[in-house]
Amino acid sequence: MKSARTELEELMRTIPFNEALGMKVVECGKDSVTLSCKLREDLRNVAGVLHGGVTASVADAAVRFAIAYKHGRQRKAATVELKVNYFLPISHGNLFAEARLIRDGAKICVGEVKLYDDQKRLAGAALITYMLLPA
Amino acid sequence: MKSARTELEELMRTIPFNEALGMKVVECGKDSVTLSCKLREDLRNVAGVLHGGVTASVADAAVRFAIAYKHGRQRKAATVELKVNYFLPISHGNLFAEARLIRDGAKICVGEVKLYDDQKRLAGAALITYMLLPA
Amino acid sequence: MKSARTELEELMRTIPFNEALGMKVVECGKDSVTLSCKLREDLRNVAGVLHGGVTASVADAAVRFAIAYKHGRQRKAATVELKVNYFLPISHGNLFAEARLIRDGAKICVGEVKLYDDQKRLAGAALITYMLLPA
Amino acid sequence: MKSARTELEELMRTIPFNEALGMKVVECGKDSVTLSCKLREDLRNVAGVLHGGVTASVADAAVRFAIAYKHGRQRKAATVELKVNYFLPISHGNLFAEARLIRDGAKICVGEVKLYDDQKRLAGAALITYMLLPA
Repeated sequence: MKSARTELEELMRTIPFNEALGMKVVECGKDSVTLSCKLREDLRNVAGVLHGGVTASVADAAVRFAIAYKHGRQRKAATVELKVNYFLPISHGNLFAEARLIRDGAKICVGEVKLYDDQKRLAGAALITYMLLPA
Repeated sequence: MKSARTELEELMRTIPFNEALGMKVVECGKDSVTLSCKLREDLRNVAGVLHGGVTASVADAAVRFAIAYKHGRQRKAATVELKVNYFLPISHGNLFAEARLIRDGAKICVGEVKLYDDQKRLAGAALITYMLLPA
Repeated sequence: MKSARTELEELMRTIPFNEALGMKVVECGKDSVTLSCKLREDLRNVAGVLHGGVTASVADAAVRFAIAYKHGRQRKAATVELKVNYFLPISHGNLFAEARLIRDGAKICVGEVKLYDDQKRLAGAALITYMLLPA
Repeated sequence: MKSARTELEELMRTIPFNEALGMKVVECGKDSVTLSCKLREDLRNVAGVLHGGVTASVADAAVRFAIAYKHGRQRKAATVELKVNYFLPISHGNLFAEARLIRDGAKICVGEVKLYDDQKRLAGAALITYMLLPA
């Protein structure tokens, strides 16, 4: 039987944009999922640091994976809205997004995301609302 | 002398992630800038439609370009926070992001973004806060 | 037969907190509803201007009234999330909140709100997500 | 010498709208401040539960108090933007807002707020951005 982590790693490989950004599953905690994304040349913004859109993408994916982790890979869900605060630029190394479902309702799930750099400094935070869809 | 649009097109080519996503400058209005992004296979999410992170990236870039359009390419600015609401999935064609600075303060700029699909249906909306940085 | 405006004015009088803040229905446009709130001594914050929580309350109510205007007073709905940007302090006179439903889906409604002062200066903006509930 | 809590209680009494809502300082933790607000008849919405605008007001105030707790009562600050997610209605008893500064920069502070009911159930969450102002 596959582990939850193996399931999520397989899921990752089926999502073109997550693969294109090089996202990886780093950890599946008791109630959290952590993804990473390595800063590459093509992920930089005009200031030469990680583009805020990449950060938003990884945060969004981390909540999506937290839903898959809790409800199974087959559970359909769509982002209703996404809000990210940026604290520190990521100029090298990895971005880590640790997502936790703080609301897991019948229709609406809300994920809280903490964003870290390689030194475990808090680089940002997000609150992301998903709607669970009928199978 | 270069047109404002040429300036923005040149700026686009200096931003690796915008280029990687294939963003284009579509229009510079009186007080708005519109960018586009064509749906490619590698920009899809698990449901096969445009990844919400791409939408967030284009919305963020559109506000950044509206700041450059108003304040000049050299003006430094950083995203403080970004909020996107998703209404409709983009399953083919282009995403358009039309950004307008609704607040243009000494330190803080706020951009309002309307997101459209090829049929000019409203696919989402965003409010994005930037901080202007010292040169 | 009652006008839409009379309906909304009656609705207002049934909502204790809106009444407590002194909110009024100012205008029902083709696709928008505008509410007002007069700055009183007890609505001030530590800086002596209108408390941001009052602004959020009026913005939230304006979207709720735009839903009632479009779907009828009996339509049940609950705020999923609320996001307000503040541009200018309101130090006297009225706050106006003009709400428009930019997404009116089967389950989710999203209202865009523009906040004005007495001089029609843009004092803030909001994006607010509601869920329509079964009757 | 006054305790930090006494300072915050004194600060509370100088803020008209916080007083009008009946907010109280419940706890000053190592790095958090918790405020409460008791549901009264005049704080209800159309559904008979605590108005979302009250929740937003208490969340906003809790972050403001976390800034005063960390930087002193005299520190001036203004809300740049506020985002609240609502999970559960508050139909009786108290709302508690526990705020923590997750970003405390030279110009920008970001507070994370957890909202609870009397049974310590998570009723909502907020991310609120403040700008520190010159004295």
